[in-house]
This record gives sequence, C-alpha cells and structure tokens, in this order.
Amino acid sequence: MQIEVIASVNEARSDDLAGKTVLVIDVLRASSNMVTALVHGCPCLIPVETVQQAKALQQPGDLLGGERNCKKLAGFDIGNSPFEYMELVRGKRILMTTTNGTRAVQKTQRAFKVLACSLLNATACAEAAAAWGKDVYILCSGTQDVFALEDGLCAGMAAEALHRLTGGQIEGNDLCQAMRSAYLHNQDHLEETLLSSANGRRLARIGFGEDVAFCSRRDLYDLVPVLQNGCMVPADLPASTR
Amino acid sequence: MQIEVIASVNEARSDDLAGKTVLVIDVLRASSNMVTALVHGCPCLIPVETVQQAKALQQPGDLLGGERNCKKLAGFDIGNSPFEYMELVRGKRILMTTTNGTRAVQKTQRAFKVLACSLLNATACAEAAAAWGKDVYILCSGTQDVFALEDGLCAGMAAEALHRLTGGQIEGNDLCQAMRSAYLHNQDHLEETLLSSANGRRLARIGFGEDVAFCSRRDLYDLVPVLQNGCMVPADLPASTR
Repeated sequence: MQIEVIASVNEARSDDLAGKTVLVIDVLRASSNMVTALVHGCPCLIPVETVQQAKALQQPGDLLGGERNCKKLAGFDIGNSPFEYMELVRGKRILMTTTNGTRAVQKTQRAFKVLACSLLNATACAEAAAAWGKDVYILCSGTQDVFALEDGLCAGMAAEALHRLTGGQIEGNDLCQAMRSAYLHNQDHLEETLLSSANGRRLARIGFGEDVAFCSRRDLYDLVPVLQNGCMVPADLPASTR
Repeated sequence: MQIEVIASVNEARSDDLAGKTVLVIDVLRASSNMVTALVHGCPCLIPVETVQQAKALQQPGDLLGGERNCKKLAGFDIGNSPFEYMELVRGKRILMTTTNGTRAVQKTQRAFKVLACSLLNATACAEAAAAWGKDVYILCSGTQDVFALEDGLCAGMAAEALHRLTGGQIEGNDLCQAMRSAYLHNQDHLEETLLSSANGRRLARIGFGEDVAFCSRRDLYDLVPVLQNGCMVPADLPASTR
C-alpha cells in the first residue's frame, strides 16, 4: 500500500487523488468538528467554500457553521469550536464553511473515498483505509498554504496505524516517513505539542486553549466521516475493521 | 532567535531570506560535496545553474563538477559523488552544477550569510549561526520541488543544535518543530533512514549506496562553507564558536 502525505492544500493535484482513499486533515478544527458533529447525531454535514453557498443551501432546521480567522461568522448558528458541535447538532443538517478544511474537500472529486480525519478518529480512519485496501493519500490542510504541525502529526498517526494494521506493508513518500517519525516522537505529549504550534498558540491566545486540548485527544471516537454526494456522513465500515 | 524551515526550493521567496543566516541543505549530495571539497583543499567552489555557465567560467586548472539525474555530465571532470571531491580537488577551483542545490543558492542574494549545510557539518553551521545571532532560514533543496527526507532530517539536526546552543531560545515555525522531532526520532539510525528515503533508494539502486552511507555521517567536519562573491569558501568562524 502506497501512502502519500501532502503538506498543504495548495500542493494537492486532483489527478494524484484519483482512485485513492483520501484522508483530509484539519485538526484545528474543521475535521475534528466534523467527526464530533456526526458522533453527536448530526446526520449530514455539508462542507462548502463560501458563506453565500452555505446560505443558498440552507433549508428550515439546518444549522450554519463556520469561521473566518477563528471567529464565528455573522448570522451563523455555530462557530468553529468542537464544543459547539455536540448538543446543538442532534438531528440537524449542518452547512459548514471554514478557512481551509472545506477547500481541501473540494479537490477530491476523483477519489475512491474521502474521509475527515483528526486525532480524535485517526485510527478508525486507518482501519477503514486498510480494509478497503486502496492506496492512501493524506491531505494536510495547512494554514494559508503553509504546513501546520498538528495536521502533520495526525498524518503521522494515521500512517503509523496503517503500518501496524498492514504488518509493515506500506510504502510512504518522504513526507510520510518524516511525519510518522515526528508523531512517534510526540505521541505521549500531543496536547503540549499542539499548544506550541502556530495555530495552537494563536487559538490559546484568543481563548480557545480548551479546543486545542480537546482536539489533541487520540481516538476518542471510532466514527469515520465519509463524503457521499457532497455530504459528510458516518461511513459504513468494512466488516473486517470491527 | 527565529528559525524558519522551508521544504523545497520552490517555496523559498527571496524577500523572506533578507538579513538572515541561510542554511542551504542538499544532503544527497550537493551540500555534502561542497563541504567535502573545501575540507580537502579546494579553495573555492562556484555553484552555477547551467552547464553553459560552468564552461563559460572555466579557467585553466579549474575542475568542472556536476550531475543531472545522478549522472556525471559529459566533458566534466567529476560527478556528484563525495568521494570525487577528495584527493582530486586540492588547490583546484571547482565550477559545480547540480540539479537542485545550486538553484537554492541562487535564491539567497539578500541574505546575511549563505552556508552549505549537510549532516557532515550541521553542528558547525549551527555554531556559526548561533554566534552571528541573526534569525535563521533553513532551505531544504528537495527534489524537483518535492520535500526530501534527508534534507528535512538535516534541518532538524541544525535546529536541535541551535536549540542546544541558545539554551532553548529559539522559536521555530511548524515545519522546524516537525523536522526537529523527526531528527530526534531517527538520530541513532540515520544511515538506515536515509537509505529508506526516495533519493537514498534511488542512489543505492544505481550503485551509490556508499555515497548515501557517507552523507549520513554526522559532524564529520567542522568546516562551514560560506558564499562570498559567488564562491563557496571556508568561513572565518566567529571566535565564540571555538
């Protein structure tokens, strides 16, 4: 199994994703929010690029979620904190726009499957990918086209899980090897490491340190959000993973 | 001290390098060759972009060195193996063209100093940078605009040395933190790790496994090549480093 890790959305070419299981990672905080929402009973989360798209698609009962530069958008129901994607979202469809995470999803149209991967569910995502058996493309969203440490560490965690699940039968690109090493070096103090990253420091400074701590937790959930007809829904996992 | 690590030449913007100590890294093999040549008595190594430039600058006694896609260029005296940059080069000026390493040097015109850094001399480079005290920009050459593991690990080694030399007074960008972690995870088996990288595998396959092993050695040399008037020469190191 080939595993390719890409450092930011800007570097992803949609041709390279064709036929692969794609893990889209935006740990702080889009992909963490997606899995949190589905775990808490949201049946469908639609990632969109613009505020206009979100408002155009909104039907009665739908929630609008999203942020620009870490702040909730005017007229939106929820912002970009994982704690907002819990009680509020049960039974509600969410239209979600974020700075980076949704842009990543837009690049994945020819993929075999597109999963939302975070530290909260990286092992579950790896288990699904291992069961499907396709080559894996791990797309770190990054921040404004720059590598983000928390996304790289999550890529490394997924790669390490795939290494374990396949009995070492993976071949990673150079960035995959580097991120797997970086994850292994930091796995026992992820919260501290995330708080030292550029996004972690920024979020803590503006009062979202608890979000960073929450998003640092490993494998809190075993749900895998998968994109179906433009909507993130809980994946029906292959039998071999459970 | 700020430390910024950049993953490939393509991402470097010359404005970002202004006033900084720039470490240009191309472990396999340009920057390893540069320090090896100067240690072995080459007084001046001129990095150039094209074969034509090399031939145009050649004076009697000068050596032409370089490769394209791992092979020595027609009419050149030496290729791109570090073992060719030893006995042959004493007292000779070298005009060197390589696939990636020289392109990196071209981007550094507004830098404070430009050093050729490899695993062979990373600590010496860090000592010089720490003594000068400017912010540090670590430019991994990469391969055809893609991140190369060996360059990232060398960046991590230099960052770790700077961390130690400054008593922890560094602030690295996210890629710097990731590479420092990856280096610390691999520091005791660098040769094996380099042989598992894309470039390492390719070089071993075409008969240059010994080059990879040699370029994996840490701190074999304490010489720092610095760019002066377009020529790499041994740096006069600040007194505080020795």
